[in-house]
Amino acid sequence: MQRTVTVDLGSRSYEVRIGPGELNTLGAFAAGLDSVSNAVVVSDTQVARLYGERAIGSLGDAGMTASLLSFAAGEQHKTLATYGRLLDELLALSPPIDRDSLVVALGGGVVGDVAGFVAATALRGLRWLQCPTTLLADVDASVGGKTAVDHPAGKNLIGAFHQPAGVLIDTETLTTLPPEQTASGLAECVKHAVIRDAELLVLLEENADAILACRPDVMGELIARNVAIKAAVVSDDERETGVRSHLNLGHTVGHAIEVTVGYRNIGHGQAVAIGMAAACRMAVHRKLIKLRDAERVEKLLGLLGLPVRLAGLDAEQIWLAMQHDKKVRGGKVRMVLPTRLGAVDVFDDVTPEQVRKVIRELQ
Amino acid sequence: MQRTVTVDLGSRSYEVRIGPGELNTLGAFAAGLDSVSNAVVVSDTQVARLYGERAIGSLGDAGMTASLLSFAAGEQHKTLATYGRLLDELLALSPPIDRDSLVVALGGGVVGDVAGFVAATALRGLRWLQCPTTLLADVDASVGGKTAVDHPAGKNLIGAFHQPAGVLIDTETLTTLPPEQTASGLAECVKHAVIRDAELLVLLEENADAILACRPDVMGELIARNVAIKAAVVSDDERETGVRSHLNLGHTVGHAIEVTVGYRNIGHGQAVAIGMAAACRMAVHRKLIKLRDAERVEKLLGLLGLPVRLAGLDAEQIWLAMQHDKKVRGGKVRMVLPTRLGAVDVFDDVTPEQVRKVIRELQ
Repeated sequence: MQRTVTVDLGSRSYEVRIGPGELNTLGAFAAGLDSVSNAVVVSDTQVARLYGERAIGSLGDAGMTASLLSFAAGEQHKTLATYGRLLDELLALSPPIDRDSLVVALGGGVVGDVAGFVAATALRGLRWLQCPTTLLADVDASVGGKTAVDHPAGKNLIGAFHQPAGVLIDTETLTTLPPEQTASGLAECVKHAVIRDAELLVLLEENADAILACRPDVMGELIARNVAIKAAVVSDDERETGVRSHLNLGHTVGHAIEVTVGYRNIGHGQAVAIGMAAACRMAVHRKLIKLRDAERVEKLLGLLGLPVRLAGLDAEQIWLAMQHDKKVRGGKVRMVLPTRLGAVDVFDDVTPEQVRKVIRELQ
Repeated sequence: MQRTVTVDLGSRSYEVRIGPGELNTLGAFAAGLDSVSNAVVVSDTQVARLYGERAIGSLGDAGMTASLLSFAAGEQHKTLATYGRLLDELLALSPPIDRDSLVVALGGGVVGDVAGFVAATALRGLRWLQCPTTLLADVDASVGGKTAVDHPAGKNLIGAFHQPAGVLIDTETLTTLPPEQTASGLAECVKHAVIRDAELLVLLEENADAILACRPDVMGELIARNVAIKAAVVSDDERETGVRSHLNLGHTVGHAIEVTVGYRNIGHGQAVAIGMAAACRMAVHRKLIKLRDAERVEKLLGLLGLPVRLAGLDAEQIWLAMQHDKKVRGGKVRMVLPTRLGAVDVFDDVTPEQVRKVIRELQ
């Protein structure tokens, strides 16, 4: 079964198509765009080995000239150096790329970010398609048009907003995904449920086992609902000035945890899960939600194989790291907190005492 | 006398302010923007030496923290390497930049292109102001939001569209400009007149001496009228899909001349002037305009110190170079030709014979 979600951004609106075998429709999709001259698939070496041939084959079957560029897999390669090498290769292709060339990002979040930034800036902007191959990229990076590379000074510090011409999510690619990567995606799904859709919480609760087993139809439904939520948030607020900040639920404390315990010692999904537990606890203390609501979220995270506690957290260090977050504006720490399950708001009056108290509870 | 031209781009509209001493108003202008946290002036070493202190001083007087970053002057430094170094320096500043930081591009076209690309991509896009200091940047680069760096494969191949929050043109900076740089700017002025404004031709004809002497009030008037023309074209067509291509008048043959005789052997303004002469001649052959119209344009270019002939041009090589132009779409060479003085159209049926004939006439 194929599902389609439209991301509504006026003249830059696009469709996200979700289903098993979707990658085989890449060529037809690309050929359906206006006057595409040729296509360049950008991937990492790992994903290129698994799916590169299928992508190029599908484009070729549709009568398109297609090239494949790849870079070493891993966040450590999401750099300006990789970006520069990809541009060198892109601009050396024969026949040369032109303004009608199409970039296809094939891979997880790192590939989408780097390939998207290449597409955003080669010839001052080429059209691009996203073919995400991880659950996290499916439900998060595939909507929003964010592209970036990291810098020694911080993650995602260099990049651009560049909306894709379309997104093709092949649910079959999830079967090759390591469990810790699935966990990262599921943390985002719980986040979407808490900020906008209490019914999605029920879907997650009732299908936890099927989801962990990557059962195709459940995954299609799960991804479509999450894409729809993110699309709604992004359509409301394309430039991240208002409601889009709701997507930071769990990320303020989550990032601070990643910084204080070290990125290598904790997965992003795990950090966000603990960060969401922290946000829910803080919301309980501020009498925004009931304790049983917080416990329900924590229980669901547990069912999905995500942690909600971490021993040895240093409340002072976490508070310090929160103050250095990229999202700090005018020196105020802002936290997204649930006001009920399915709704959140942004609070900029969080005190160090409140953070300390919550962190103690998460030990 | 201060003149203001509004570039109308909906929510991204901005003002271009033109006048003597305008650079001294930089701080007040920046302080008038919404919630600017700090400012970073990006310049080249040459312009920084002349005007860096005034820019920083003006920002400081307005109560803003301001830093100055600079890179070696010259098109040869408009590279991804320079861009990367500037980002390293920008992201190492203390206090750190944030989403409310403002980038100020202080210098000619190269500075605007590089600093603008830094602004377009640092933290996925910071606001920026342009303070152009050459006539070419005043009348050309200050409107349109184009930013870029060069690549060994070609000029401006990597970049982004990123509209500034405002443009401040200090006409006094023109007095420090070498004559060949003034000539480049004047070629663009003639171009604007031919594509959209026959009255501007008269202004140029009647004031050629005052313009070559950089008389402040004439320059203010000249720049304002040219900015208004470019602003009108860009407002009509922000993404260069239609009428914006009219701005390529003289550039198809001009670029081909630069490529065939070598960028070091001819100035951009000179190449464009000869390219315009070629376009006018071709328009005469196609009976779009009268011979006396072409001769009038050539005479004006001469009055402004620009060439309209060049010995030793190779018609075959020029035709070949025209086919490799970035603006070629679907393999067709497109040329902008005047249909009368003050109006142009795009023609995609230019033949090698027509090009050969015109090039012979320009020997």
